[in-house]
Amino acid sequence: MGPRGAWDSIAGMPTFEQYLAWRVVVETPALELDLSDAGLAAADLTAATPRLRAALAAMQALEAGAVANPDEGRRVGHYWLRAPELAPEPAMTAEILESWASIERFAAELRDGTVSASDGQPFRDILLVGIGGSALGPQLLVDALGGRLHVLDNTDPDGIHRTLAGLPALAHTLVLVTSKSGSTVETRNGMLEVAAACTRAGLEFGRQAVAITGVGSHLDQLARAQGWRARFPLWDWVGGRTSVLSPVGLLPAALLGLDWRGLLRGAAAMDVATRNPEVRANPAAMLAHAWFMLTGGHGERAMVVLPYADRLVLLSRYLQQLVMESIGKREDRQGREVWQGLTVYGNKGSTDQHAYVQQLRDGLPDFFASFVRVLTSDADRHPIEVEPGVTSGDCLDGFYHGTRQALAERGRPSLTLTIDRLDAPTLGAVIALFERSVGLYAEMVDINAYHQPGVEAGKLAARGVLTLQHRLLRALGEQPRSVAELAEALASEPFAVWQLARRLALAGRVRGEALADPSSARFAAI
Amino acid sequence: MGPRGAWDSIAGMPTFEQYLAWRVVVETPALELDLSDAGLAAADLTAATPRLRAALAAMQALEAGAVANPDEGRRVGHYWLRAPELAPEPAMTAEILESWASIERFAAELRDGTVSASDGQPFRDILLVGIGGSALGPQLLVDALGGRLHVLDNTDPDGIHRTLAGLPALAHTLVLVTSKSGSTVETRNGMLEVAAACTRAGLEFGRQAVAITGVGSHLDQLARAQGWRARFPLWDWVGGRTSVLSPVGLLPAALLGLDWRGLLRGAAAMDVATRNPEVRANPAAMLAHAWFMLTGGHGERAMVVLPYADRLVLLSRYLQQLVMESIGKREDRQGREVWQGLTVYGNKGSTDQHAYVQQLRDGLPDFFASFVRVLTSDADRHPIEVEPGVTSGDCLDGFYHGTRQALAERGRPSLTLTIDRLDAPTLGAVIALFERSVGLYAEMVDINAYHQPGVEAGKLAARGVLTLQHRLLRALGEQPRSVAELAEALASEPFAVWQLARRLALAGRVRGEALADPSSARFAAI
Repeated sequence: MGPRGAWDSIAGMPTFEQYLAWRVVVETPALELDLSDAGLAAADLTAATPRLRAALAAMQALEAGAVANPDEGRRVGHYWLRAPELAPEPAMTAEILESWASIERFAAELRDGTVSASDGQPFRDILLVGIGGSALGPQLLVDALGGRLHVLDNTDPDGIHRTLAGLPALAHTLVLVTSKSGSTVETRNGMLEVAAACTRAGLEFGRQAVAITGVGSHLDQLARAQGWRARFPLWDWVGGRTSVLSPVGLLPAALLGLDWRGLLRGAAAMDVATRNPEVRANPAAMLAHAWFMLTGGHGERAMVVLPYADRLVLLSRYLQQLVMESIGKREDRQGREVWQGLTVYGNKGSTDQHAYVQQLRDGLPDFFASFVRVLTSDADRHPIEVEPGVTSGDCLDGFYHGTRQALAERGRPSLTLTIDRLDAPTLGAVIALFERSVGLYAEMVDINAYHQPGVEAGKLAARGVLTLQHRLLRALGEQPRSVAELAEALASEPFAVWQLARRLALAGRVRGEALADPSSARFAAI
Repeated sequence: MGPRGAWDSIAGMPTFEQYLAWRVVVETPALELDLSDAGLAAADLTAATPRLRAALAAMQALEAGAVANPDEGRRVGHYWLRAPELAPEPAMTAEILESWASIERFAAELRDGTVSASDGQPFRDILLVGIGGSALGPQLLVDALGGRLHVLDNTDPDGIHRTLAGLPALAHTLVLVTSKSGSTVETRNGMLEVAAACTRAGLEFGRQAVAITGVGSHLDQLARAQGWRARFPLWDWVGGRTSVLSPVGLLPAALLGLDWRGLLRGAAAMDVATRNPEVRANPAAMLAHAWFMLTGGHGERAMVVLPYADRLVLLSRYLQQLVMESIGKREDRQGREVWQGLTVYGNKGSTDQHAYVQQLRDGLPDFFASFVRVLTSDADRHPIEVEPGVTSGDCLDGFYHGTRQALAERGRPSLTLTIDRLDAPTLGAVIALFERSVGLYAEMVDINAYHQPGVEAGKLAARGVLTLQHRLLRALGEQPRSVAELAEALASEPFAVWQLARRLALAGRVRGEALADPSSARFAAI
């Protein structure tokens, strides 16, 4: 293997003492947060401790049922999902327990054939229709723990067609439609497209459909009216981006035979560890503190998520939603404009070493790396040697250490989350760790982490686009008219008219002439 | 549909005149770059024109065969890949044309059964072993244009195992091993793991393996010695991140029946359009100008890539590599420290509306959005109505407009690339547009876009990790020793010894005691 290696001759490796000083450990499931390369100072932690204690106290109030999301007048209860006895009302505890029982029952019925396809065959595939938290959480679970999940998470007809064409058999596919409000346009459209595909195939959609939605929502009513196979509840005290341990994630996990009770157990264990008022031993408090110090409490560095494990490649997208939708806020809770945020991106190591790590080491110092290291897996049991005495896994871990040190040498901070192995309890614990860290960080910067007011404007404008399209289609006549003429007739913007008319012409829904030049183009009814 | 919508009541929509003033069009394949929401000013463009002209002249020299990558003493020839007659030496022209002929020949042999599996059955699946540019380009092509490609792009044994287990039949899988240098560790390990799996299954690996590598590389020699099915060339004048239109991308595209000639045709057409010395009509020059103005020539805003098309979801990862590895540089070409970069992230619209668009509108103003809009697809032919007169595709396009306007209202800049439809020529054109924009931008900020010196340190350190692991394994004896004792014996860092020994103990390769406390832990040979 040649002479002594370059690892410990690269500057910036923490000493054993630094590592021990900035290490936070949870024993079950085994998880270690190593902050020794994050550039933290003991004095800063001391200074921050009152603020962290206050944040922990606020989280305690939240868990006790305070209205932590005042804009929407809602309590924030994702922590109750794995400790139902903590819910502030006995009825809520009962509803969570009942959801577990019904998940267990339905999964058993699927296994034993009580629930089967219209031809009596077993359902062999699961198609999830949902977007945002209703898709990312289940996708993360299934990709990390194993299983096959088909997903419709958009309103792209081409993408929908591709997904449906990729199903082994629509007739043997159970369709889970997930939407808390029951009125998310993308999810409604996905559902209607699947229903239409069923009709075309001579299948009764309701016979193979399951709703996961708020009780009494539009979707719930539809599912009841059409006699869908089953309905599972969502609660208004669970936000989409923290719904993975509600029926949103648990039901698909259970149907695919994954250890969904283990997910809950791991998350509950992490919740216990992250309620610890002793900041130094509380991994969520320490993580929130690190974020605050690394970003100046104002997103000055992006969080680059680099799991050294193929099965965690979706973690960055999951955390991107959890963190950016929670922290990216215009106003603090006092109504002051703060334009907060904490940008998250990343894929996986060591793959990304061959993509953008060049910039991380040599370029803009505008980020910190969040490594995730998985110490062992079943694949380590009978490894082959890729060099004498060296396995593929040794190389993977070597690349993690190498990249961490190459960044440290350049003063690029990082932190590392290490888990012994990737299983359901550990994954539940990782999810719970980030949930609470986000909550604590939001307390520290005084924002509401549980609403998403900025999303409305885009939806409203999109509704306006459809309204204008409708009016445009009605205004078109036999006589071709220019963009300017149509805009005048509609009392609208020519830019908007052109964008709509061009697309409709290409799709063959209106007649278009001279499309190469927007100023000369003319449109008429078909 | 209710009253007049909110689209044109949201502030910030460009006027038709602004749109026409900042629109750059390529006719074939149809592509439009709309910069009217990028906040550009005519005076800035006038001022920048000499610099842009100089950059275009430098690209001309590059295309004529100048050594544009002086550190590595290499020419930069990815533009020749789609216009071989432009290569500076007849031998290079001949090599490119010969690679096309051999790709065509091999694809035909695969189709007609001349090339078949060891049991005489056709090869039904393609497994690509490669990382970085050797994987992202082919993955983008296949995901966008259709087909099934299995990929090993890491050295994670668990991920490798999962991919191999997911193959319908290893015996009927053609394995493409792609590495220009032929010595990339992750790719070598993937190859060895597949070869071992073949041996375990009684298959002769070489009979189903194909090499895509530099002539004479270690991999090339191995493939020749083992009598692999075929070998395809890579050239040192093609960088990994611009290799998609070399055999790296063309061979898998051809084997999967995709229109690889169309890719080349589209890229060549875009090359013609982006050589135009008239800046205003040159989409690559205008895009590079926009990047420069939006980022201060120093990456002050991140590029959020949002294609409104499921089949382009990998575009952001592809561009992340292309842009960040090219632009993320420590030194400019005069040797001054500049710590350059241009961060890229994103997934797809409207899905990301339900993830991080909240932060884009309400949070940090540290980005610009790069929308990609696809006007029509085959799925538009027989649409269903999701509301009276409204299709799923109408909603998708509505969400694009809505998000664009919601961002514009808040002064968040964006630009939009619109294509009529997503096919091979258009995809080739999009790839070529970004390739040249990156080249022009690098000229403007005076950096070498074609090397990646920052990647070496991490690889070197990783090699050091393996060296230390080797020494640790040899140093361990029957008597358990502490981390401090082992570090002293190895004259190494206790932090490093602990990290290695803990992992080896969990994997059962060394004996570990008291692992819960690094200071008390002791290790011995198994």
